[in-house]
Amino acid sequence: MITIKNLIGLGALFLAFCSLSVHAEKWRPVEAENAVLITLPHGKVVIELTPDFAPKHVAQFKQLIKQGYYQGTNFYRVIDGFVAQAGPSEDKKGKQFSAPVLAMESEWQFDKSWRFTQVQSPDLFASVTGFKGGFALGLDDKTNTAWLTHCPGVIAMARGNEADSADGHFYITIGQAPRYLDRIMTIFGRVIYGMEHIQAIRRTAVIEGQQAVDPAQFTELSNIQLMSDVPPAKRINLEIEDTESESFADKLNERRLRKHAFFYKKPPPVLDVCQVPVATRIANTKPAQQPK
Amino acid sequence: MITIKNLIGLGALFLAFCSLSVHAEKWRPVEAENAVLITLPHGKVVIELTPDFAPKHVAQFKQLIKQGYYQGTNFYRVIDGFVAQAGPSEDKKGKQFSAPVLAMESEWQFDKSWRFTQVQSPDLFASVTGFKGGFALGLDDKTNTAWLTHCPGVIAMARGNEADSADGHFYITIGQAPRYLDRIMTIFGRVIYGMEHIQAIRRTAVIEGQQAVDPAQFTELSNIQLMSDVPPAKRINLEIEDTESESFADKLNERRLRKHAFFYKKPPPVLDVCQVPVATRIANTKPAQQPK
Repeated sequence: MITIKNLIGLGALFLAFCSLSVHAEKWRPVEAENAVLITLPHGKVVIELTPDFAPKHVAQFKQLIKQGYYQGTNFYRVIDGFVAQAGPSEDKKGKQFSAPVLAMESEWQFDKSWRFTQVQSPDLFASVTGFKGGFALGLDDKTNTAWLTHCPGVIAMARGNEADSADGHFYITIGQAPRYLDRIMTIFGRVIYGMEHIQAIRRTAVIEGQQAVDPAQFTELSNIQLMSDVPPAKRINLEIEDTESESFADKLNERRLRKHAFFYKKPPPVLDVCQVPVATRIANTKPAQQPK
Repeated sequence: MITIKNLIGLGALFLAFCSLSVHAEKWRPVEAENAVLITLPHGKVVIELTPDFAPKHVAQFKQLIKQGYYQGTNFYRVIDGFVAQAGPSEDKKGKQFSAPVLAMESEWQFDKSWRFTQVQSPDLFASVTGFKGGFALGLDDKTNTAWLTHCPGVIAMARGNEADSADGHFYITIGQAPRYLDRIMTIFGRVIYGMEHIQAIRRTAVIEGQQAVDPAQFTELSNIQLMSDVPPAKRINLEIEDTESESFADKLNERRLRKHAFFYKKPPPVLDVCQVPVATRIANTKPAQQPK
């Protein structure tokens, strides 16, 4: 029998994920020039690019989109819990695309003036983790090196064995963060809307004993456009929670302390940077009523 | 233009995920009495239950399945990157189900004779992590306490604020492991087949500014049966990699060292227990040819 207890339980578990903050949330608009609209047969996805961290990869990705390089290509390598990878197949070889080989842009040096919001120190894969501009970071505080980290929903360029061998095929992470790929792959954006549609892409890897997946059933990347090239009426205009705001820092702290009664026993006061949600909302949303 | 380089890159990245082992893999059959077949509108899913770790939750889950408690219920709380939760709604209140409140079964004490395969020490949320019977574990080596950990694809009972308040509503984790829930929720099984169909369940949580999801569009749990109650011809018979085998330990070691040329720069020699794949195969598969 369902009782009020169940309903309380659901509410409590919900709070456990989306803790309330004392400070009003701060938001920033996503620039149409740095947003990409991907149309899949089953839904729309928006990616925010990060020219600050991977300028050459972002520039080439934008150029390839404009050239039609990805138009009608397939997600041909989709492994549950790992990645969904796409790019033109061999039969597109005849078409000429300008996709020169890219040099790795996977880490950078920072100095004391460089600001980010710290999440955890130490972490399993980094001495420090944090956020900047909505992106999860790993940092080495001995060498003052930082990098974007492979949380679910990042987009990065695939490559060969050599560091500087990526050109256009990309993957999006769809499972537990494969952080062993940090610093050796170039992440250049992340999914900020429609991640559930990326998760619903047809898997192409088969398990032993299972019938192989027919390539005709692979999920097609029906359309891909820079948001700035989409007619204004058809754009998805988004805002991202400001991860350098006081309200976000408060949220991290509340998440770490887990003061809600649901936590009858407190978990360790640590945070996995890839398990901290960064909120997205449709732009021009009325601000939510603040708690009195 | 696509070159052979891209193809090599894909192969390399694939190896990075599924490293080859020198020892032949060892497998164990999944017992039909401990397997559950879930039929969703878009695919079939198999869960393996763990009576060794959560005997009372497993017994009650089996009994509720047999009573028809879950039949035709909805996944009514599905949050991308977090959980897909299901159970009967209020309008089923009239029907009488025997779903008594369950006491927490989330951790246990172990002694020196207790065997498991170690993965990592220390870990962000535990002093030691490991595997036993295909399940990921967290361990505290000071108190000799162990627990099942919230990796993607585990099934656990939802509850209210009180520890001992779960009865029948369950959730399956669908994103980065929410390990802050370890030890305070009872995990009683994990998805071993069809996780991509769990990932494709309709999300019910909406973002600010987005139209609310109509409950009529929630994904229905069309059917759920113990595998032992499924006619033999319609069963999905599976085998699971033996996580206590020498070959699995070898695989962990290779994964930690990342010797493949793809890793032109080595990642830290650490493993996230939730990012180590445990293989499933269809039973009665011919053994794969061993490398010479």
